[in-house]
Amino acid sequence: MEPKPPIKIEEWFFENHQDRYGQGYKVKRMLESLQTPYQKIEIYETYSAGNLLVLDGCIMLTSAHEFTYHEMLAHPPLLIHPNPKSVLIIGGGDGGLMREVLKHKSVSRAVMCEIDKEVTELSKKHFPELTQWIGKDKRAEILFEDGVKFIKAHKNSFDVILIDSTDPVGAAEGLFTSDFYAAAKSALKQQGIIASQAESYWYMKQTVAKILTQIKAVFENVNYYSAQVPCYPGTVWGFTIASSYKYDFTRADDFDRAAAIAKKCQYYTPQIHKASFFHPKFAEELIASALK
Amino acid sequence: MEPKPPIKIEEWFFENHQDRYGQGYKVKRMLESLQTPYQKIEIYETYSAGNLLVLDGCIMLTSAHEFTYHEMLAHPPLLIHPNPKSVLIIGGGDGGLMREVLKHKSVSRAVMCEIDKEVTELSKKHFPELTQWIGKDKRAEILFEDGVKFIKAHKNSFDVILIDSTDPVGAAEGLFTSDFYAAAKSALKQQGIIASQAESYWYMKQTVAKILTQIKAVFENVNYYSAQVPCYPGTVWGFTIASSYKYDFTRADDFDRAAAIAKKCQYYTPQIHKASFFHPKFAEELIASALK
Repeated sequence: MEPKPPIKIEEWFFENHQDRYGQGYKVKRMLESLQTPYQKIEIYETYSAGNLLVLDGCIMLTSAHEFTYHEMLAHPPLLIHPNPKSVLIIGGGDGGLMREVLKHKSVSRAVMCEIDKEVTELSKKHFPELTQWIGKDKRAEILFEDGVKFIKAHKNSFDVILIDSTDPVGAAEGLFTSDFYAAAKSALKQQGIIASQAESYWYMKQTVAKILTQIKAVFENVNYYSAQVPCYPGTVWGFTIASSYKYDFTRADDFDRAAAIAKKCQYYTPQIHKASFFHPKFAEELIASALK
Repeated sequence: MEPKPPIKIEEWFFENHQDRYGQGYKVKRMLESLQTPYQKIEIYETYSAGNLLVLDGCIMLTSAHEFTYHEMLAHPPLLIHPNPKSVLIIGGGDGGLMREVLKHKSVSRAVMCEIDKEVTELSKKHFPELTQWIGKDKRAEILFEDGVKFIKAHKNSFDVILIDSTDPVGAAEGLFTSDFYAAAKSALKQQGIIASQAESYWYMKQTVAKILTQIKAVFENVNYYSAQVPCYPGTVWGFTIASSYKYDFTRADDFDRAAAIAKKCQYYTPQIHKASFFHPKFAEELIASALK
C-alpha cells in the first residue's frame, strides 16, 4: 500500500482535547481570527468539510456535518411536544438551530438569545446556509444578551427551550447548573420541554454524569439521547431532554408530523429518534446511575 | 478560558485519512515499529487510551476502545444464529474477536485465519487482554494463512464467518469482492451467517456502497449495522451481515441467551443490537440504494 503522507501541522487545524486526543481537518486557509469579549473565534476553509467554525480552540461545526447536531437538538423536543408555538434558543449564534426550529409550522415565535454578536455576524458571512432565515422569517427574533439573565426575566413563556452552547467551562458554565435549570423550568409553559447539548460519554464521562445530576435535581422526567457529530471528539454527542410532564421522549407525539419534518431533513427520521435513546451498555449504566 | 496547548506533532500519533481528516492520540513512546511482508506494524503507548495498534498508518485499535468493535462484530451474528457451533475468523490477528467468540458456550470450534503472524505475536506482548485465550481454550485454533485460499478450500463447514480485516485496499482488497463472498457462501453451513467490518458512511460513502453491492450480488438477505469505535475516522463504524436464510437480523434468536452474553459485555445489549440497525436518513438512503 502507498505510505500515508506525513501531517505537516501548519497545514491542518487540530482540536486539542485535554492534551490527550486530537482531531481535525487539512485547511486551505484561515478566513477569520477574532478575539471578542467572550471568546476567540476562528474560521477556516477545509479541503473536505467546507468551512470550519472554532471557538476557543474547540470545533463548533463544519458545513459538512452541522445538519446532524442542529436537526437532532431541534426536532426530538419539538416533535415530542404536541403543539410547540413559542421556542427559545440560548446560544445558537451560528443560526443553524433556528433554521431547524423554523421548519415547524406550529411555531409562531422563536427567540434566539446569543451572548456574542460576532458569532452571528461572521456566520452570515461564512455560513450563509445557516443564516438564510435572518431578516426573512418574521417568526424569528434575535437578541444579543446573556441567556441566564434573559431566562430569569421570563416566566411561563416558552413551549420549548433549546440550549446550544459551548462546553460547560468558562462563558457557558452557568447554563449547566441546577440554578439555571430551575430558571428554565419557570420560563417554560405547562408541558414545556428543555433540551440541551450535553457532551460525550466517550471523552467526558464525568461531565455527562454531572450535567445529568444537575438537571435531574430540577426536572422529574429526564432522559439522554445522542446524535453523530463527526467533527466533535468521539462523534457520538449527547443531549439532555427534560420536562415536568410525563412524556415518553423516545417517540414523536404524532408520527405523520414527524414524517413530514423528516422529509426536510438529512439526519432525523422517526426511527432514528427512537434509536438515539439507546446507548452502549457502559453508557446506559453511566446515565442510569446519574439519574437514579 | 485557558488557551489550549499547541500540538507538537512529534509527541502525537495521527492517522492521516486521505490527506483530509486526521485523528490521533498524544503518545508517551513508540513500543514497536516493524515492516512485515504484509504491512507496517506500529504500537504506541498513549496517555489516555492505553496501547495503540497501527497497521500501514491506520489506527486498528486502542486498549480503551477495542471492546466496542470486537463485541459488535461477534455478538449480533452469533446471537442471530440459533445454535452456532463452528466459527471462522478471517484476519483478527490481534485476538480480540476470538475472545468474544469464545464467550458463546455453543461454540465448539473456532478457527482464526490470520495472514500476518507478527500481528498476533506483538499482540501477545502488548495487548494481553486480547490474547489471554491463546493456549488456554482448546476450542480455538490459530492458522497463519491466506484467508481467501483457506475459505476456498472449505465447503459447508461453518455456522458463522467473521471478517476482521484492514480497509479494502492492498492486502485485504480480496476480502470484499463478490468472488470472495461466493466462496464464503460455499464455506457456510445451511443457515450460516457472514459478518464483516464494512467501513464508515461518514468518510467512505462510496466504499460502503461498493461493499454492499458486492455482497448483495451473492447473498439474498443483507443488512448493515453499526458500532461506535472512537479511534476510527467518524467513530460510527459499519458491519455487513448476510445469509442465504431469511433471518430478521435486528434481533437475537433467543432473548435470554443475548441477555446472558450482555452480562459479559461493556457495549452489547439486546437493545443496542436492535438500535444498531437504524441509521441517519442519508445513510439509510445510501444503504437502501446499494441493496435494491
